[in-house]
Amino acid sequence: MRIAVDASGGEFAPNEIVKGAIKAAHEYDVEIALVGKKSLLHLLAGKHLKKLNLSIIGASQNIDFHEHPMEAIRKKLRSSIVIGINLLKEGKVDAFVSAGNTGAVLCAAFFSLGKINGVERPALASIISLNRYSPALLLDAGANADCRPSHLLQFAQLGNVYVKYTFGVESPRIGLLSNGTEDTKGNRLIQESHQLIKNSDLNFIGNIEGTDLTKGTADVIVTDGFTGNIVIKTVEGLGDSFIKVRSPDHTRSLRGRALMADVGLGFLVKSMDYSEFGGACLLGVKGNVIVSHGRSRAKAIKNAIGLANRASEVNLSQLISEVKFNSEGKNGQ
Amino acid sequence: MRIAVDASGGEFAPNEIVKGAIKAAHEYDVEIALVGKKSLLHLLAGKHLKKLNLSIIGASQNIDFHEHPMEAIRKKLRSSIVIGINLLKEGKVDAFVSAGNTGAVLCAAFFSLGKINGVERPALASIISLNRYSPALLLDAGANADCRPSHLLQFAQLGNVYVKYTFGVESPRIGLLSNGTEDTKGNRLIQESHQLIKNSDLNFIGNIEGTDLTKGTADVIVTDGFTGNIVIKTVEGLGDSFIKVRSPDHTRSLRGRALMADVGLGFLVKSMDYSEFGGACLLGVKGNVIVSHGRSRAKAIKNAIGLANRASEVNLSQLISEVKFNSEGKNGQ
Repeated sequence: MRIAVDASGGEFAPNEIVKGAIKAAHEYDVEIALVGKKSLLHLLAGKHLKKLNLSIIGASQNIDFHEHPMEAIRKKLRSSIVIGINLLKEGKVDAFVSAGNTGAVLCAAFFSLGKINGVERPALASIISLNRYSPALLLDAGANADCRPSHLLQFAQLGNVYVKYTFGVESPRIGLLSNGTEDTKGNRLIQESHQLIKNSDLNFIGNIEGTDLTKGTADVIVTDGFTGNIVIKTVEGLGDSFIKVRSPDHTRSLRGRALMADVGLGFLVKSMDYSEFGGACLLGVKGNVIVSHGRSRAKAIKNAIGLANRASEVNLSQLISEVKFNSEGKNGQ
Repeated sequence: MRIAVDASGGEFAPNEIVKGAIKAAHEYDVEIALVGKKSLLHLLAGKHLKKLNLSIIGASQNIDFHEHPMEAIRKKLRSSIVIGINLLKEGKVDAFVSAGNTGAVLCAAFFSLGKINGVERPALASIISLNRYSPALLLDAGANADCRPSHLLQFAQLGNVYVKYTFGVESPRIGLLSNGTEDTKGNRLIQESHQLIKNSDLNFIGNIEGTDLTKGTADVIVTDGFTGNIVIKTVEGLGDSFIKVRSPDHTRSLRGRALMADVGLGFLVKSMDYSEFGGACLLGVKGNVIVSHGRSRAKAIKNAIGLANRASEVNLSQLISEVKFNSEGKNGQ
């Protein structure tokens, strides 16, 4: 597999991105193309190029976090995001990983790669693993703040394919995130979506609630991008608190992660740490795109490349294109 | 202060409710009226009646969790919920605490006590304390799944009064929960609500996101009841995980709470435990009503009575009735 990595995107670019790519090149059987400022990347990664499956592709421009996504991708044709997405479009790489301006990555993916036939709204799918039994996939994690019921039905279908082929779960349990488990609970969007998903041929287990996230109740957690983003960031914030904790008398900084591991709670802190999962997969566009956290350091980038590798191995966007999407919910899988 | 407590409501009623009331009668300067099955309450609390400020008020019926709220309060006029709310309406008590069927408590409060003049939608306000600096108030925590922008403006006004008078914060910082901090972020509801709250005379700090919950960014966290409920329950689920954790080899059950305290993380587990705060305050009805968790044990009930006592001391529902509510957001406080 060949994976393009945006070396200019994210708060800790390019250093941490390059470090993460080097780790990934050691760990996975992948070729990695670092996309960014050529001379800088040669300085940082030059000595590894011959030994590892690493290469450098020049991108003289950079899209900043505060830039307007649509304007930026129109004007900055030499940016790492536009070039990376184009490499994917031209089939020169199997996946693209970026920790840069999320809006710009989404726009470039929508408009350059295009949506898969029948998909109304591509969605960001985040792995959320808050119990010791099995990870779950939450989508939409933030691509679509306002959704219609047919979008949520499609998120269920997209998540179903992802979990089936990358986690290897034969018949993923689909749960709809709501403010109560009864069928009648939810806002209007959820009540209507519930009926649509219930009438599909998916393995729909009904509404689930916030407390179910830690119980392993569902393999796919369906939600709109507004709610999904808030849930993901609430968990992230709590995870950060555990890692950064100081002793009560403030005299010493405790290594939260190590301490938690000492008392047998390591798995929980690990599961609340976004860097363990590396990023969210954009499902529904013609290509495998991984959006990483803007604060990604080397470990997160390495894991994002692992995620991209897995998506490429199963040919995820091809599998999704074989699904029959419609608002009646008849799923071709 | 005189507080009526629903002794028939909740999974662990009446035993844990009575235990909680006895603890509260020891701890606070309150008179407590236990509302429930008379003979049973005499058995459980009889020997304390003379020593403590405790009394028993008979309620021969009980409203179950699965019952339809509106039907139940119409039919069961001798239920602890209907009798408790009536005591409040008649001025015989200063507050009512219930861990029973939440929908039934809300219905009884709306229809029997009535809404305060100008309030469109009463809201459930939950204390959420995920940082070591200061607690925050999140509302709506679940009373209104579908909201309009004017409702969210009023939630901001309700929360402002609560935090000002019960936490003693002069000018509470009001944050609007969204999927990003920029003014343009949010779904349509949040974007429109943002403008309304911005034009009010509240101390509006703008949009906040999930990661802000642990940072102490805002004193009042404004959200619709659907999102608020999911956030509260996500935090609750994670808190439960920490408390119930077992050792990795499953051979012994670790006391999560004690272990966390040992490593200096006690404050975080405590802050994720709903029983520390006792319940949510229903703001916007003519009376002080505290809705406790259905799984409340003695500690949660004791703390809910503390919350009811505080609301009564400051005369919360009276303070709210002095606010000038309107959709332009001119706040009389």
